[in-house]
This record gives sequence, structure tokens and C-alpha cells, in this order.
Amino acid sequence: MKAQVLVRLKPGVLDVQGKAVEHGLKSLGFNNVSDVRIGRLVEFEIESDSTEDARREVTEICEKLLANTIIENYEIRGLE
Amino acid sequence: MKAQVLVRLKPGVLDVQGKAVEHGLKSLGFNNVSDVRIGRLVEFEIESDSTEDARREVTEICEKLLANTIIENYEIRGLE
Repeated sequence: MKAQVLVRLKPGVLDVQGKAVEHGLKSLGFNNVSDVRIGRLVEFEIESDSTEDARREVTEICEKLLANTIIENYEIRGLE
Repeated sequence: MKAQVLVRLKPGVLDVQGKAVEHGLKSLGFNNVSDVRIGRLVEFEIESDSTEDARREVTEICEKLLANTIIENYEIRGLE
């Protein structure tokens, strides 16, 4: 089944990349844009007998490799 | 309103970062994972009078700054 993981910086953690994009947008004339935050999108195929097993395993994968849980949150989507 | 943009490498474009993550997962024992693709998640606040205006503007933002449309696709989500 297909797994989709969204990794975001925790609220309050300075998003340097987001600030750079926001600055770029303003200099292109998009002055109505604010609070730009950049995260990662990780998609993969996982073989598993059940959605529950897959979810448990994807959680482990996030904790061990995909997210730095000190500064990042992760959201697991689309296990079907 | 809140805009969410997902930027992905086009199918067929080699995803070096995805390959590295896949290799890392396999060496951690996750042998049931394949086709890892890494993309970007961009979230921001956009002030606009209507959803249609916002969508048009977010499309322009994607084309001009967020995505390299030669090798990347973008998906606009969640303008509400």
C-alpha cells in the first residue's frame, strides 16, 4: 500500500527556508503571502498484511529515520 | 486562507534523496519498503477575496518560484 508522510518543523522553530521563500515572493510582488513554512513530503510503497501493521511500521520509520522529532512533527496519511 | 502545495519530482526523474532514504530503511531492516520519493511541502497564508483568485495566484507562485516545472510537478491543496 502507498504511504504518505508529511514532515513539518514544529511551531516556534525558525524556518529559514520558509523565510527565504517568503522574501522571494514579496520581491516578486506577492505581498499577500505570509507564514511560509517548508516541510518534506515522503511517499513510498509498503508491503503489509493490514493497515494497522503498516501504520505501526510507518510510525517506526518516521521516528527512526524520516523525522528529527526534537524539531519536527510528522503526519502519516493515505495508507490504503 | 491557508494554501498547501506539494512539489514532487516528475515520474522518471531519478530521485537520489529517495534512493538514499530507501537504502537507509533497508539497512535498518525495513525490507518491505520500495519506491521512496521525496518531495517538498510548502504551506502559507494567502489573503484573497475569493478561492478562485487565490487558486490563480497560488498557481502563478508555483510556476514562478516553488516548482521547477521541467523536472517537478505541483499539486495545490486546501484553499479554504
